Amino acid sequence: MKKKSAAPTMKDVAQEAGVSLGTVSKVFNNIPVGEDYRHRVREAAEKLGYQINSYARGLKTNRTQTVALILPLLHHPFFSALAEQLTGALMQRGYRALLFITNFDPDAEQRCIDMVRQNKADGIIALTYHPELRVDEGLPFVSIDRHFGTSIPCVSADNFGGGYLAGEKLISFGCKKPLFLRSGSHVVGEPDKRFAGFDACCRNAGLPCESLTLHDADGFTPFFEFLDKHVIRKKPSFDGIFCNTDSLTLLICDYLRSHGVRVPEDVQLIGFDGIKSLGTERYVCSTIVQPVAEMAQMAVDVLLTDSSAQSSALISLPVHYAYGGTTLDGEADV
Amino acid sequence: MKKKSAAPTMKDVAQEAGVSLGTVSKVFNNIPVGEDYRHRVREAAEKLGYQINSYARGLKTNRTQTVALILPLLHHPFFSALAEQLTGALMQRGYRALLFITNFDPDAEQRCIDMVRQNKADGIIALTYHPELRVDEGLPFVSIDRHFGTSIPCVSADNFGGGYLAGEKLISFGCKKPLFLRSGSHVVGEPDKRFAGFDACCRNAGLPCESLTLHDADGFTPFFEFLDKHVIRKKPSFDGIFCNTDSLTLLICDYLRSHGVRVPEDVQLIGFDGIKSLGTERYVCSTIVQPVAEMAQMAVDVLLTDSSAQSSALISLPVHYAYGGTTLDGEADV
Repeated sequence: MKKKSAAPTMKDVAQEAGVSLGTVSKVFNNIPVGEDYRHRVREAAEKLGYQINSYARGLKTNRTQTVALILPLLHHPFFSALAEQLTGALMQRGYRALLFITNFDPDAEQRCIDMVRQNKADGIIALTYHPELRVDEGLPFVSIDRHFGTSIPCVSADNFGGGYLAGEKLISFGCKKPLFLRSGSHVVGEPDKRFAGFDACCRNAGLPCESLTLHDADGFTPFFEFLDKHVIRKKPSFDGIFCNTDSLTLLICDYLRSHGVRVPEDVQLIGFDGIKSLGTERYVCSTIVQPVAEMAQMAVDVLLTDSSAQSSALISLPVHYAYGGTTLDGEADV
Repeated sequence: MKKKSAAPTMKDVAQEAGVSLGTVSKVFNNIPVGEDYRHRVREAAEKLGYQINSYARGLKTNRTQTVALILPLLHHPFFSALAEQLTGALMQRGYRALLFITNFDPDAEQRCIDMVRQNKADGIIALTYHPELRVDEGLPFVSIDRHFGTSIPCVSADNFGGGYLAGEKLISFGCKKPLFLRSGSHVVGEPDKRFAGFDACCRNAGLPCESLTLHDADGFTPFFEFLDKHVIRKKPSFDGIFCNTDSLTLLICDYLRSHGVRVPEDVQLIGFDGIKSLGTERYVCSTIVQPVAEMAQMAVDVLLTDSSAQSSALISLPVHYAYGGTTLDGEADV
């Protein structure tokens, strides 16, 4: 094929790859085709220097330029930050965000997806708690924090690494008796790996790690009874607690302090999420910070771009630790 | 006209009112028509018992079932709660929410409205800081917190009443030297009435009220310098401060406490918004609570229903006071 001076078109890619224009379109639009075809089209596109923004233009054809965002709620800082960042990343690419709030209702989640399919949105980015969501093969779909099998890409923070980091930090701040507390959905998700990482770190350090897990419906009383017995009434059996969210960390911190346990002097606490105090740059507790902006950007990239990331089942983005007053490292260490 | 047994249709309403079907459609779809026509159509609809959900069905015809929400940001609890409640109220009516985040950029706000018009959304609910937004006459538009003249309905909390209530509370808790602090946009909006209400209350009580207003770009240093001079270095010249947001209240509270001023013993503080501490039912400070759910429901009602509310220029919804630790009333009084 002779070299062209103008920017290569999809037709050029089809000719170079020896496939039909329809096949090229399918590949660029992330509609399943045989792996061999996908490979040939990608190679041809690369060879010709077919540009990524041309991919985006390709996506545009006969498209709604709309992506559905499905989230359980917005009144928690992690979810509202995620919605803001996702909307911003979509708008930057000329896409509009159709927002669905499901309030953790699996029926509502399924209804949203059915609705999106009927309304022919270009794709879905969802953080759902539906254990058996039915997603059409042809519908571009990116999941956040929940793994639906290898055919649907999932973007999350490095939850395992974050749990491990929380363990390393507590140990480096002098903790010898670690405890993990978790409250949340009973649906299995990426955030469950926070404990796996924490437990692995503690075991590597030769420190046995206890844990207590509650589901949303259980309330918090079992935590308080456990803390009464093992931390408050006698010399604490635990001196370092990793909680699966910042929200839980605040609750535990309040409970301990109101019962005469000093935080961080007697017990150090680390949470997960990276929530900041209203109107300030201070973290509400010492925490493992989720890279919300990067997660949103990655989810949009994976959804709208025919990138190699799309063939990954799980993309975990790096987290970092931040001081927030509930550990002994202090501001100077930040 | 003879009585029909089946549910009345728009055609029946047109016949009863003696107008064309197009006029009925315009009235139900909130497209401007002469006041006489509107009156006749409404009377006919009422006489025939044409149902409100039929209005909604009428709206559906050739419609996108989509409403655009334009907000400056989501990472503040007031905005995220508003977005969540608006989305919920729309979904309850079978509408979808198209979310736009403008980051306070007037160009972005205008672009969003132009985009919505091109994409034929059924209407817009917007909280914008654009002083001279151009909104088409034919496009159903409800503004939150910002008044664009009498042709566009505006929904807000009762900001004047809230300011007055803050004054009454501070005075009833023993304050004699009131101060108002405001930080925010330079664009004139409904929230500006918070000071007017506070000032009116203080004047009625014979207490002169001082105030200090800063715009976003000014930073907070002038507040700190003012507080250093009038509150911290000598016996406080002010014993009750009303701040225009909870966020500002927290900042002022932190600053005073870190400089040895006791809150609420030396100085009492009341904010505005009704923000709760993460994961709890506790307010972050004593505050005037905005009725966010009711504001969202009202905005959606006004946008989608041919109600009398639509002809109001401004709908202010009642606020209430809540204790949050920065006043001397204490929990028992709640």
